[in-house]
Amino acid sequence: MNYKFSDKISGLKPSAIREILKATADPNIIAFAAGNPAPDAFPVDVIKRFTDEILEKNPIAALQYGATEGYTPLRDAVKKRLAAQNSFSDRDELIITSGGQQASELSCKIFLNEGDTLICESPSFIGCLNAFRSYNANLAGVEMDDEGISIAGLEEAVKSNKNCKLLYIIPNFQNPSGRCMSAERRKAVYEFACKNDLIIIEDNPYGELRFGGEDIPSVKSLDTEGRVIYAGSFSKVVSPGMRIGFIAAAPEIISKIVVCKQVSDVHSNILAQMICHKILTEYDFDSHIEMLRGIYKRKYTIMAEGIKEHFSSKVKVTEPQGGLFIWGTLPEGSDMLEFCRKAIERRVAVVPGTAFLTDENAATTSFRMNFSTPSDEQLREGCEILGKLTKELYGE
Amino acid sequence: MNYKFSDKISGLKPSAIREILKATADPNIIAFAAGNPAPDAFPVDVIKRFTDEILEKNPIAALQYGATEGYTPLRDAVKKRLAAQNSFSDRDELIITSGGQQASELSCKIFLNEGDTLICESPSFIGCLNAFRSYNANLAGVEMDDEGISIAGLEEAVKSNKNCKLLYIIPNFQNPSGRCMSAERRKAVYEFACKNDLIIIEDNPYGELRFGGEDIPSVKSLDTEGRVIYAGSFSKVVSPGMRIGFIAAAPEIISKIVVCKQVSDVHSNILAQMICHKILTEYDFDSHIEMLRGIYKRKYTIMAEGIKEHFSSKVKVTEPQGGLFIWGTLPEGSDMLEFCRKAIERRVAVVPGTAFLTDENAATTSFRMNFSTPSDEQLREGCEILGKLTKELYGE
Repeated sequence: MNYKFSDKISGLKPSAIREILKATADPNIIAFAAGNPAPDAFPVDVIKRFTDEILEKNPIAALQYGATEGYTPLRDAVKKRLAAQNSFSDRDELIITSGGQQASELSCKIFLNEGDTLICESPSFIGCLNAFRSYNANLAGVEMDDEGISIAGLEEAVKSNKNCKLLYIIPNFQNPSGRCMSAERRKAVYEFACKNDLIIIEDNPYGELRFGGEDIPSVKSLDTEGRVIYAGSFSKVVSPGMRIGFIAAAPEIISKIVVCKQVSDVHSNILAQMICHKILTEYDFDSHIEMLRGIYKRKYTIMAEGIKEHFSSKVKVTEPQGGLFIWGTLPEGSDMLEFCRKAIERRVAVVPGTAFLTDENAATTSFRMNFSTPSDEQLREGCEILGKLTKELYGE
Repeated sequence: MNYKFSDKISGLKPSAIREILKATADPNIIAFAAGNPAPDAFPVDVIKRFTDEILEKNPIAALQYGATEGYTPLRDAVKKRLAAQNSFSDRDELIITSGGQQASELSCKIFLNEGDTLICESPSFIGCLNAFRSYNANLAGVEMDDEGISIAGLEEAVKSNKNCKLLYIIPNFQNPSGRCMSAERRKAVYEFACKNDLIIIEDNPYGELRFGGEDIPSVKSLDTEGRVIYAGSFSKVVSPGMRIGFIAAAPEIISKIVVCKQVSDVHSNILAQMICHKILTEYDFDSHIEMLRGIYKRKYTIMAEGIKEHFSSKVKVTEPQGGLFIWGTLPEGSDMLEFCRKAIERRVAVVPGTAFLTDENAATTSFRMNFSTPSDEQLREGCEILGKLTKELYGE
């Protein structure tokens, strides 16, 4: 049969990096290409205990249909936590989503007609870029500096693209760059959005994973107009397998998202919502977060030191203060895809930077490394292997 | 702020029946309007035992990211069960979805451009109709007789609508009508789809819940061309709160659905997938299904007898051999919405038939009653109350 798929889906091309990512399924490969939480970061015993309690005391509620908005006690607990971080006000509403990814997908669906423009950082998270592509959004990538997305670049983007409606940003420990947007830049970005009538999707899956420096107020905390959609997730702090995230935004936005979620998956898994609720309210969640920060600080430090010790000085890397990723950049003019291929041959997988560009055919010499998934030993070994390769290719 | 939502979402109007459905949240209302499994239908002890085992022996796998296609052992077990029902062949592939609803939503997304036509039974399941509406599909509802969707109606629909691409049907114990499509009609519908190059979405959430008559082969079992997307779900046979369903279809279709699911919720809750796998492979699932059939046969019989005893003879009802719903039709010319409002005043909620039409403003004197959610006592009491009302309005 000759299937006639929709234009928006036919436009989703198989990624050029698929072959490289496929190789990461091989257990003999050191996976610097993943983005999984460290296995020792999961609060297994606590999840087990809470699950027992829920299925003992309240099984029917856990197994029956629930409200699309989410399990009310969890919504209340998340609202409370976000309010303490100034990311939820009494003008806001909140919905539980099936992971952070769904937050971006539904935000795009309710706002964009096909061909409308979504502006984002370049590079940005491939999963959300593909979500936007699946609605035939016109993606306008804007370059970043160390403080975050460029305001001059934003000005240029709204001038040269039609129907700019959404601005997607990951201010904390951005995926893939690891960068954190400065407080000044957040203000400037918010003001820019107000001036140009853009809705901001502030994606914050990594904000709790800060292992250095000071917290910076969210863009949501600056929002007086109701134009920031704040997306968070339990994936990086409890469990990604549960698929539980959330959106805080103006009630008008949340009510449209509720309609869209209802026709997509009706509601998110209830047992997982009840577990997350107990984790927030009957467990010392802040101590748990401190524990996670300790793990990721250790893993980051091992990778950063390995890079310092082994990598060619010609390779530049970001120095994130949180999150899961380091962004490396090879010398100008070098063949990054060839570097990634050679790395795979030596059993280390990194993600080619092209994966994170709005135009996958654009040139970049950058690549992403993840320090949360590999074991400490693999981090050391992988850095040594990659470092040796960089020195062979680019000199000391 | 004045939000500019996308055209496809702005088109999703608040439903005329919202107020009536809201009333069902009141615990003093007898809910003939719901569609929840009976509380005693949940295999609570088994779920508890399997959950314990999974979190004891394999917690990291249950909590970590998983594949978008689904948990491989569950996929294999579902394939095997479907193959035994002739609904999966070795030319097919299978993906786990977040409930049956997601199957229809993603099938629509991968095939329809805005304005393309989806043909469906009229009346049909409101959740999926709204999913299709959320992609700006043109919905063409085709009337049914006792054997299912009308072939003459299908002929008319493809003539009078542009770009007909999809045909959505619920052959077994259709929601809301409770009707089961005959074997003859299934063949005719499949042939019609072949002749008119339509892709069929065969939604089968209720197929296992047959409490009378003989199983009828699925439309999928007739499919030699790869044009049937078969959607099933654990919602009605294990737990809807888990949000686990599946799609069996040609590999080309499944691979597009994988891309779309990946950008929506990445994958479905892993623990729930592992529980479903154990239920299929380490538990006597067939005996469990027999138990469910017993429950629903009992509940159906109570409602059917209550209707026979108390309802005005002017009210016609369907006599389903499975599923969860009875479809009632008031005498021609009667004010169905007024009947539903009066029923609510007397503390019984039914769903106005307009909710299930492709055109919510079209006229119908029908309404839906559910027999799985209310207790046996509520079924008796509700039928007495409704029956009295029908006699007051329409005579003996």
